[in-house]
Amino acid sequence: MQKKRVVIVGMGFGGLNAAKALEGHGFDLLMIDRNNYHLFQPLLYQVATAGLEQEAIAYPLRAISRGWQDAEFLLTEIVGVDLESKCLRSAAGEIFYDYLIVAAGSRTNFFGMKDVERHAFDLKRLDQAEDLRNQILLLFERASRESDPLRRSALLTFVIVGGGPTGVEFAGALRELIVHVLSKDHPRISPDETRIVLVEAAGSLLTAMPPDLREYACAKLRAMGVEVLLETRVVGASAETVELHDGTTIASPTLFWSAGVAAAPLAEGFSGVERGAGGRIVVQPDLSIKGHPEVFVIGDLACCLQDGAPLPMMAPVASQQGSHAARAILARQAGEQPPPFRYFDKGAMATIGRSSAVAVTGRLKFRGFPAWLVWLVLHLFYLIGFRNRLMVVMNWAYYYFFHERQVRLITAGKRRAEP
Amino acid sequence: MQKKRVVIVGMGFGGLNAAKALEGHGFDLLMIDRNNYHLFQPLLYQVATAGLEQEAIAYPLRAISRGWQDAEFLLTEIVGVDLESKCLRSAAGEIFYDYLIVAAGSRTNFFGMKDVERHAFDLKRLDQAEDLRNQILLLFERASRESDPLRRSALLTFVIVGGGPTGVEFAGALRELIVHVLSKDHPRISPDETRIVLVEAAGSLLTAMPPDLREYACAKLRAMGVEVLLETRVVGASAETVELHDGTTIASPTLFWSAGVAAAPLAEGFSGVERGAGGRIVVQPDLSIKGHPEVFVIGDLACCLQDGAPLPMMAPVASQQGSHAARAILARQAGEQPPPFRYFDKGAMATIGRSSAVAVTGRLKFRGFPAWLVWLVLHLFYLIGFRNRLMVVMNWAYYYFFHERQVRLITAGKRRAEP
Repeated sequence: MQKKRVVIVGMGFGGLNAAKALEGHGFDLLMIDRNNYHLFQPLLYQVATAGLEQEAIAYPLRAISRGWQDAEFLLTEIVGVDLESKCLRSAAGEIFYDYLIVAAGSRTNFFGMKDVERHAFDLKRLDQAEDLRNQILLLFERASRESDPLRRSALLTFVIVGGGPTGVEFAGALRELIVHVLSKDHPRISPDETRIVLVEAAGSLLTAMPPDLREYACAKLRAMGVEVLLETRVVGASAETVELHDGTTIASPTLFWSAGVAAAPLAEGFSGVERGAGGRIVVQPDLSIKGHPEVFVIGDLACCLQDGAPLPMMAPVASQQGSHAARAILARQAGEQPPPFRYFDKGAMATIGRSSAVAVTGRLKFRGFPAWLVWLVLHLFYLIGFRNRLMVVMNWAYYYFFHERQVRLITAGKRRAEP
Repeated sequence: MQKKRVVIVGMGFGGLNAAKALEGHGFDLLMIDRNNYHLFQPLLYQVATAGLEQEAIAYPLRAISRGWQDAEFLLTEIVGVDLESKCLRSAAGEIFYDYLIVAAGSRTNFFGMKDVERHAFDLKRLDQAEDLRNQILLLFERASRESDPLRRSALLTFVIVGGGPTGVEFAGALRELIVHVLSKDHPRISPDETRIVLVEAAGSLLTAMPPDLREYACAKLRAMGVEVLLETRVVGASAETVELHDGTTIASPTLFWSAGVAAAPLAEGFSGVERGAGGRIVVQPDLSIKGHPEVFVIGDLACCLQDGAPLPMMAPVASQQGSHAARAILARQAGEQPPPFRYFDKGAMATIGRSSAVAVTGRLKFRGFPAWLVWLVLHLFYLIGFRNRLMVVMNWAYYYFFHERQVRLITAGKRRAEP
């Protein structure tokens, strides 16, 4: 009997977990990604703030699947899906499947604001983290030789939009980079001259957290020197300014946008499927598409309702859905009906700075040093590869003990502004 | 009394050594580079062959000079020098000096072959090493899905021009990358299908070495599977082919050029100075420019005659000249005449592969494992920074024991070809 071909599109947390669960079960397994590595997105902000090198949070996919019997990897980008003929269109040609798992993730959502999209930085890819790091380091170089006080002040102002974990973690890490590293590199620049403005549309930061942890995070960031603007929205941007909903303008060339995600563009390559908020593909309780029990959509790309609300777009959901999609395919092969997917919420966390974080799991709440330890251990645990863990531990230990971040190179990124 | 201003242009081996020797002597010291880091160029080829991450061989200049009293750093590119008014022109404006040390290095010399310049890869900058690594990894991805045997064979052919240390070291490292890493990543590609062609115009490799070591290196490379073509010149290139002087054409999209260097473009920004071979600026015995005892040119940019021949363009010459230029300025300040510069040749070496190298110092010659150990220890010794040394040792040890190179990410480089 010919092996059934399972194609997995996207090797993030969801796709990788699905592949791990399907390997060794006698399928012809094809893993597809447009990059040759799995990216640990939760630590991208540390690459952007000169805390980690790119290599520490990316792991070659072919290294992961080296000992695997059933799996092959294909580096390409999928541009369309023909559900009727069970065929994917890609730059590498047509790819047929018996089962399909689509885990293509998300893109940043600028909610139609073209000027913001043009000028803002966002963090989805490695090169974007490098671009943002280059921007921060270059602005300090420029500011240190700028004689006009207004211009200098603008160069040293950083606006962050979105008070979710990414915005909070980036704001804290940027503040520490400035206070502990860049102000020593640039004796002429005092940390008091710099401004970090964190803008959040809701009435609090980290809205997924219990109220006391939200307040702790906000108070902690403010004590560190981050300006937190709640119930405030960014409505426009230029190369030099950020515009708020009340008409205020902040002079700053750096706008970091972490205020929203939407389905990856591949969602538009599916014809005749129902789409939910943010363009996400609506899935059945078992994560398959209506009328196509052989096609599963997981992770950020899937709009999966649980208890009446769509599940959040985050790594733990994707990971669990990846394992579930694999189990569902194994069930189908065995002639059984796959069970419905149910997300088990293990909790949430965010780090604010050195020795400071918030974490919640079930009814347990942590903050400060214990939460930071939990955060640290869990992130190391979920990182792939001994070498990457070692690199991250070394970097973190070096920073913890010496207050020094070494990865502060201004490289020739795609967006490089000239010195 | 006002402090004398010493400006150093270029923070490679020469500039950095000059700065170290001048710091603490009461000058107003300005260090200028177009990058914010010192680059350990001798290991660039290991970044290009996925053996080291960029961060391991680059060190932030502001981290080097943090504790220094006299020094400031300016990130900019110098475009011209006005020797009469003692003024440099840069993107950051005019910069005046009392003493000037120009250590702007070299560029790759394509000897006027425009088509080679357009299509070849070279290794002077970090981003070029990343581009070359991306190219190698991408070609293996493409070849693994290429069905046409001729096309596939071309994708897996790599042409290296220049049998000096860089060409030899790159050829050996590439061969090992293919045999030990990429052929395991790509079970469909056998190392026997790949070709590495090392092209050298002279009758032997490593012409600076004694004859027996030259022959050892050549025999070793050939035993590893590298095709060495001696007395052969590359005379043209296209995106798909490399053309040799005898009319032979090699089908290959990858041409790595390490067959020549010339003075950096800044040499053209000096008016009225004598230029030697490769556009290098002819210097007096004390390394100053004729008629301008306050201006020193060192390293690859300087054409310095010793025993009737110009000194080679390599790191040890630059380092020693950097220290000498500093001493010469201190002598001038003390009203003394600087002594002439004399290069002390400590020897030469090149690594060929794991546990295999050639080295010569004075009358001592090493080859094989002892030479490789010498190479390893000296490169670690000359690397700057505890953290960089640790990273390099970790990477080398990992490779030595596990035959695995982890830095095989295809990143969004400047020249990235789409998958």
